[in-house]
Amino acid sequence: MNFENCFPIWSKLTSAERGMFTHSAIHHKLSSGTLTFSASSDCLGLILIGSGRLRIFISSEDGKELTLFRLFPQDICLLSAACIVKDMELNISIEAEKPSEIWIMPSSTCKEIMSQSITFSSYLNQIMFSRIAKILQLFEAVMWESVDKRLAAFLLEERHIEKNDTLKITHEKIANHMGTAREVVTRTLKAFQSKKLVQLSRGSITLTDIDQLLELSE
Amino acid sequence: MNFENCFPIWSKLTSAERGMFTHSAIHHKLSSGTLTFSASSDCLGLILIGSGRLRIFISSEDGKELTLFRLFPQDICLLSAACIVKDMELNISIEAEKPSEIWIMPSSTCKEIMSQSITFSSYLNQIMFSRIAKILQLFEAVMWESVDKRLAAFLLEERHIEKNDTLKITHEKIANHMGTAREVVTRTLKAFQSKKLVQLSRGSITLTDIDQLLELSE
Repeated sequence: MNFENCFPIWSKLTSAERGMFTHSAIHHKLSSGTLTFSASSDCLGLILIGSGRLRIFISSEDGKELTLFRLFPQDICLLSAACIVKDMELNISIEAEKPSEIWIMPSSTCKEIMSQSITFSSYLNQIMFSRIAKILQLFEAVMWESVDKRLAAFLLEERHIEKNDTLKITHEKIANHMGTAREVVTRTLKAFQSKKLVQLSRGSITLTDIDQLLELSE
Repeated sequence: MNFENCFPIWSKLTSAERGMFTHSAIHHKLSSGTLTFSASSDCLGLILIGSGRLRIFISSEDGKELTLFRLFPQDICLLSAACIVKDMELNISIEAEKPSEIWIMPSSTCKEIMSQSITFSSYLNQIMFSRIAKILQLFEAVMWESVDKRLAAFLLEERHIEKNDTLKITHEKIANHMGTAREVVTRTLKAFQSKKLVQLSRGSITLTDIDQLLELSE
């Protein structure tokens, strides 16, 4: 796994720009659950994901959480770099959901390259729009969709990510993804079980009727 | 009111870029309430606000609404131009809250200038980050703050915008701003009145204790 192969616009950068990224990018190995960034940290810069998976979430003062999105290899996290365009702090947290390899491209380098490279600047615009679109979609879902529908969608997303019908995940974690209470997740999962959509056992959930879950999620 | 004075980065553009904007920008006068853009419309392009006020909101299938933000003279709406960076549709609506003068900078022009002007591209990055920050702040408020706190904050914001302690606004409109039900707004306003924070009368709300409202909103 090397930096070049993970950075989607690598081939479009000039050799000077490549050199700047190569010299300044810092490689990190994260173990699962490590909180790599939070509102109180300094401006990190862009995070390039080499392997593993990061979760970007917001949280309340009393510890409630809501996942904004998850990032996979070759994805770039730019919410950790708000300071490169404006002195602004975003109130987000980032954690590794699996052991992950990342590169941090420091904000000073990003700032410099952004001020001269139309390729890099346009790339950031593009990612930023897709993040806004994703956040707005999520916002609408949280505001106006039923917990049933959102939970069905979450279980299917999880199945897709894990490539497994049996999910090893606690009700608490699901609640933190969905921005709801654990009790609500447990109650809804039990209702799903009584409709034979899932089979619950200690520490895992098996999806037993994908078609019905799909229908519920749409 | 002319285009140049309303466009914050005008002086930083090249004369060729200025020419392209001047020749392609379309001037519109909107009367209050006109819906200028919705999810079903084609990609409009960037909207530059000359005078008046626009409201950007999301809405549910059954007509519930939530205001994302409001735009004032010299602001730029870029959520109407998602297509310039990516073929993507954002599910947002825009309406004029007051009679407004706007210029629409067509997406084709924006696309062309973005591909060559680092000034313009960086400017879009900057606005985009502040929009993300605003949307995330709102998201957190909607998720985790009490209706009391959010309503107090809304009344104070409205007072600031209107420069008046007496607000001519219906409970229904407030509910649509806040993404809540009219009944909830009415109930909370009545509670505010019994605490002498506001004085309600037909079609208007007078803020009678600004300090208390401020405290409640913080």
